[in-house]
Amino acid sequence: MRGGFAPRATVQAMLLVEVALAEAGAGTGFLSDEAAAAIGRAARAEGIDLDRLAEDAALAGTPVIPLVAWLRAAVPGHETSVHIGGTSQDIIDNGLVVQLNAGVKLLQADLARMANGAAALARAHGATKMVGRTLLQAAMPTTFGLKAAGWLSAIDDSRGAIRHAAAEALRLQFGGAAGTLDVLGPHAVRFVEKFGFGLSLPVPAIPWHTSRAPLCRLAAAMAGAVGVAGKIGTDIALMMQSEIAEVAEPAAPGRGGSSTMAHKRNPTLSIAARAAALRVPGLVASLLAAQDQELERAAGAWQAEAAVWPALMLCASGGLAAMAEALTGLEVFPAAMARNLGLVSDSAIPAAVAGMIERSLEDHERMKVGSDNK
Amino acid sequence: MRGGFAPRATVQAMLLVEVALAEAGAGTGFLSDEAAAAIGRAARAEGIDLDRLAEDAALAGTPVIPLVAWLRAAVPGHETSVHIGGTSQDIIDNGLVVQLNAGVKLLQADLARMANGAAALARAHGATKMVGRTLLQAAMPTTFGLKAAGWLSAIDDSRGAIRHAAAEALRLQFGGAAGTLDVLGPHAVRFVEKFGFGLSLPVPAIPWHTSRAPLCRLAAAMAGAVGVAGKIGTDIALMMQSEIAEVAEPAAPGRGGSSTMAHKRNPTLSIAARAAALRVPGLVASLLAAQDQELERAAGAWQAEAAVWPALMLCASGGLAAMAEALTGLEVFPAAMARNLGLVSDSAIPAAVAGMIERSLEDHERMKVGSDNK
Amino acid sequence: MRGGFAPRATVQAMLLVEVALAEAGAGTGFLSDEAAAAIGRAARAEGIDLDRLAEDAALAGTPVIPLVAWLRAAVPGHETSVHIGGTSQDIIDNGLVVQLNAGVKLLQADLARMANGAAALARAHGATKMVGRTLLQAAMPTTFGLKAAGWLSAIDDSRGAIRHAAAEALRLQFGGAAGTLDVLGPHAVRFVEKFGFGLSLPVPAIPWHTSRAPLCRLAAAMAGAVGVAGKIGTDIALMMQSEIAEVAEPAAPGRGGSSTMAHKRNPTLSIAARAAALRVPGLVASLLAAQDQELERAAGAWQAEAAVWPALMLCASGGLAAMAEALTGLEVFPAAMARNLGLVSDSAIPAAVAGMIERSLEDHERMKVGSDNK
Amino acid sequence: MRGGFAPRATVQAMLLVEVALAEAGAGTGFLSDEAAAAIGRAARAEGIDLDRLAEDAALAGTPVIPLVAWLRAAVPGHETSVHIGGTSQDIIDNGLVVQLNAGVKLLQADLARMANGAAALARAHGATKMVGRTLLQAAMPTTFGLKAAGWLSAIDDSRGAIRHAAAEALRLQFGGAAGTLDVLGPHAVRFVEKFGFGLSLPVPAIPWHTSRAPLCRLAAAMAGAVGVAGKIGTDIALMMQSEIAEVAEPAAPGRGGSSTMAHKRNPTLSIAARAAALRVPGLVASLLAAQDQELERAAGAWQAEAAVWPALMLCASGGLAAMAEALTGLEVFPAAMARNLGLVSDSAIPAAVAGMIERSLEDHERMKVGSDNK
Repeated sequence: MRGGFAPRATVQAMLLVEVALAEAGAGTGFLSDEAAAAIGRAARAEGIDLDRLAEDAALAGTPVIPLVAWLRAAVPGHETSVHIGGTSQDIIDNGLVVQLNAGVKLLQADLARMANGAAALARAHGATKMVGRTLLQAAMPTTFGLKAAGWLSAIDDSRGAIRHAAAEALRLQFGGAAGTLDVLGPHAVRFVEKFGFGLSLPVPAIPWHTSRAPLCRLAAAMAGAVGVAGKIGTDIALMMQSEIAEVAEPAAPGRGGSSTMAHKRNPTLSIAARAAALRVPGLVASLLAAQDQELERAAGAWQAEAAVWPALMLCASGGLAAMAEALTGLEVFPAAMARNLGLVSDSAIPAAVAGMIERSLEDHERMKVGSDNK
Repeated sequence: MRGGFAPRATVQAMLLVEVALAEAGAGTGFLSDEAAAAIGRAARAEGIDLDRLAEDAALAGTPVIPLVAWLRAAVPGHETSVHIGGTSQDIIDNGLVVQLNAGVKLLQADLARMANGAAALARAHGATKMVGRTLLQAAMPTTFGLKAAGWLSAIDDSRGAIRHAAAEALRLQFGGAAGTLDVLGPHAVRFVEKFGFGLSLPVPAIPWHTSRAPLCRLAAAMAGAVGVAGKIGTDIALMMQSEIAEVAEPAAPGRGGSSTMAHKRNPTLSIAARAAALRVPGLVASLLAAQDQELERAAGAWQAEAAVWPALMLCASGGLAAMAEALTGLEVFPAAMARNLGLVSDSAIPAAVAGMIERSLEDHERMKVGSDNK
Repeated sequence: MRGGFAPRATVQAMLLVEVALAEAGAGTGFLSDEAAAAIGRAARAEGIDLDRLAEDAALAGTPVIPLVAWLRAAVPGHETSVHIGGTSQDIIDNGLVVQLNAGVKLLQADLARMANGAAALARAHGATKMVGRTLLQAAMPTTFGLKAAGWLSAIDDSRGAIRHAAAEALRLQFGGAAGTLDVLGPHAVRFVEKFGFGLSLPVPAIPWHTSRAPLCRLAAAMAGAVGVAGKIGTDIALMMQSEIAEVAEPAAPGRGGSSTMAHKRNPTLSIAARAAALRVPGLVASLLAAQDQELERAAGAWQAEAAVWPALMLCASGGLAAMAEALTGLEVFPAAMARNLGLVSDSAIPAAVAGMIERSLEDHERMKVGSDNK
Repeated sequence: MRGGFAPRATVQAMLLVEVALAEAGAGTGFLSDEAAAAIGRAARAEGIDLDRLAEDAALAGTPVIPLVAWLRAAVPGHETSVHIGGTSQDIIDNGLVVQLNAGVKLLQADLARMANGAAALARAHGATKMVGRTLLQAAMPTTFGLKAAGWLSAIDDSRGAIRHAAAEALRLQFGGAAGTLDVLGPHAVRFVEKFGFGLSLPVPAIPWHTSRAPLCRLAAAMAGAVGVAGKIGTDIALMMQSEIAEVAEPAAPGRGGSSTMAHKRNPTLSIAARAAALRVPGLVASLLAAQDQELERAAGAWQAEAAVWPALMLCASGGLAAMAEALTGLEVFPAAMARNLGLVSDSAIPAAVAGMIERSLEDHERMKVGSDNK
């Protein structure tokens, strides 16, 4: 994820969009196949001086102006074939969509690992009795399997939600200077279709230059997933407390030590998930606030998004990956659970518990099939 | 909306849940039909002393304890039949779901009015030329109809999103004291089904006591809609500027005056929508932050939600209703649009514009059909 | 606090401002003393139909227009003497300042109680050994008195910070229709001084109609205090866990029970403080977002503040009052602390601990003196 | 600012803290002067493999463990003299304080430039008449100088507020493993004083490991300043609208162009300020949320801060620097202002205007003196 949202990757995503734009242009007669091929060959971010691009972008108010200048210089003889029909926002928004498409796949892989880990715990510990705790007080007997099934159900819910939100948000952006597709003349529909095809993106009815709600909902779906990871991290950290000691994060050399206290084993992965969960509400709030986009292109709100998305994706990735690792190798101590159960009057585990676990696992199997067919 | 989220309505929603709980209990043999009927007759919030309930709730840490005490006192001879099988959170969460179900319908009605207003503008002004403005600068010619089609598309997107999010979030909550359905024995499944049926709510695989992501996504979908309203309000307020004067909010006696300047006509409705849009990111952030719910019931995070939802729903309702009214009666001044068009070199409106408007209107027709079948 | 920010209190605060405005007008010859006296007598919110005022305010875009109309009707013969020189925002902002002035006093009283409670604990338990816990793991021996001294230091810090922020933020607002004091002619300076004197508010160099940073900082200072309360609540709730049981919130009839589990004693006060702490970041974010106030008066951002402040003040008040009560009567169980200390290798308490506690208590004494002289 | 919060600068700041720690240790007899000197020579971040450090830090849960290991390896023979008495949090928090100290100076320099620019405009245009606009409607005549004086007053207010908040927040952090200064024995007070002296930081009464309110208030003071910059950016962007054209951002080669429309001059600097202002509320919300720090060291909340501060500082720096540049070279078009004044009935500028401008300028002069003496 760090690679996918690094500055050079962002530039490369924009260059991919310029290539697709050129191919759409070649396919509809605005430029030659040769020019499109030259643009395709030249559009490699490796050689770009990112510091200078950033400076020029700050001055211009957009990275697209200096990037297009750079690309033009890289295709001698085809300068006028670069950036035909697009506006800065088309390039930047589609670049973001390309990056998010890849980023969502990584998050979904982490979530799948989390779910599989939780499912294994739910299956293995359906009958492992422990105390259920409400308001941080011992309440009633439950099983660790039911707890894990609750995690599983929440994880799978987020997987479905991100899939749905991504399908709605990750669409082609294309409108030209003021959203009117002004330079394409009678070829507009065909051009846009080819452009979307080149980027493997569905084409909406109308440009979404100033309609950011679908992106906000995708962010909220991710924030929901990070919240789930944070809640699981909280549960693990609480169960790992020295006085409770019912589970432990998987051990690894160098993990969870203390710079001063050799005896400690800290809930490092849970801390990472909780830290991520604390940050996402503010990041989502920034994206929601940036919905206030004036007229045909916003003067500030749209630009504010650019720094938020990488922060959100890295934050989400860190939190989900930590919990994927924790759930995959979680150490469970049934004896400690049995000991703490003494805090409440023991009783048989209700019959309903097994059924709830089973239904969560069935839903999980369906989710896996759905993922495969995605 | 103000009525639906007033304190007494919140209490009434919880009482409705107690009634459905009693009916499910009667249907599965935990209490007599007579007791359930008595509970149904008694469960009317009109007579409750809300101030005292609030005091007792603050002391108890939950309104359910004093409310159940009140209800028991109201059904002499059936005291032990009240609140069988439920826990405080089951009552409160289902009460919230009942309120949100009604609240969502109101918001959807406002959104439908907004959409119809925008659609009428898109249809009427498809060829009304005006200057497209990007980064608050005159950019290119466009049409007012295309702008309205952009609004329409964003509004209809939010309608679909809220519908989807509500279907996912507004489900039965039921788990008993620690989520194990502990007192229901072999009748658990049937009990839960009857309970869900009584409240017309789908039954999830497992209680969602500490899984709040679906509610957060519903909040985000609403925030998206309010953001759309805010963006339209911004557009209208900018176009209403004295120097631009291309549209005006519908006039009404007493609307938009100034306490000191008789000549002014203020964009009151747009201000209401913009004010709402400014508030929702913080409210959604609070709900996202409250996802950190410990173990089987949270000590603080869950309780934090209670005050946020009414604020969010009132805020959303205010913003959407304002824009519904503004879009329904918006005054459009094509002559002023033509005058301001002089700022950019005039040119023919691109052919693509009509197609984009048409596709937005087609999507809108489909959305209407979808709404009817909901 | 609930009373001080109820709708009627808000109206009454605005009427107080109208009275002070009239008195300043009488003192500078804009109206007769008789008129000012009549306005003073009439300006009582008890008789106002708040529902109708809210409706008219929604239509007008401001409550001041219908309120001024009501006040004029209430002073027959002096109608034209009402609202001279002020604009809607002067009335509303000063009304808010009046309410905040009273609200801050209540919060400071809660904080003083919190501090005194923490100081008593720090004094009493300077040598009560317990385990210090870092990253939710047993780490090193410490004393409960040092923990309480840490709370104390944080509470007193917030008291000073709120005092400072209130002094900066709670100033007279006065500018007239566009911030130019346009109707006051050569009397402007004297008028403004009298107006400020009447409301006991300092007079700034220039109206702060669109400069909201000082108010945001006051909100942040309060949010800091609520965060301190939340942190203390977290500490108490964690120490109250059934497996740890080192402290307990003060018992009271009806407090902390469970609707289903008679044996439980829930950390109700801590939950209230934690719930408040979860909500304030979003509320402060809304106020910070509302700083974007256009030109001479904002179209949305200023209006957005109106609903946020009461929510923030009630939230803060609830959280601080809960911790004031918890700290005042906290039950401490040194035997349990000693037992849990077995988790780490015991050792003598460092000599520095007593000194740190003492310095916190000395700072606290200074803060008390400062408060008395405020 | 980018340099000051880059990963290597963060590591260097932590190394500076280790050096000061070693010097305090040498000064109190815990290690030899020779060892401290060796540590001082070795503590240079240039040679560190940051990628590997980040990996090890993720595993350990803190960068301090691998950093201390690296530093020990770099001082052969003095390994046991490294990191005496400190805990991870002491190093990280003091490193942050060192970075913030430098960062605040940069922000204050930007604010001073903004203030001087606004003061020059206030002085030059005290009598330049223009229309005052409220609720985005022409309202009353005012002068551009009064508007600039309002900006000035808000900027200077933020300068004072940041100075105050920085003085309160930027203090020595020192507590050792659990805040008890456990390894320092009778030398604790002297050690801490020397440590604070080495870092030029005041020493608080007690460690503030879990008391983050002063840092939050510093963030809020910065957010206030960014909000002021955003508001000025909004004003400029609105006055730069093609239909109004009363001011223009200073021209520079490459600034404010369009990738498709050669005729455009975009308000690039204002956009940067507005984008920054949109992001800060979410960032401050994250810091406020992170106040919930459990017991003696937080498991997640503290760690969440680490990524927020660089984002906040860069965001603030970008927004303030943009407005410093805009205000310094702002082009003002009095003729356009005069033309637009025709929208309202002209009238003499109230006498009070000159006085308000003058008082703002006087306050500004006092602020400059205060800055020099800081």
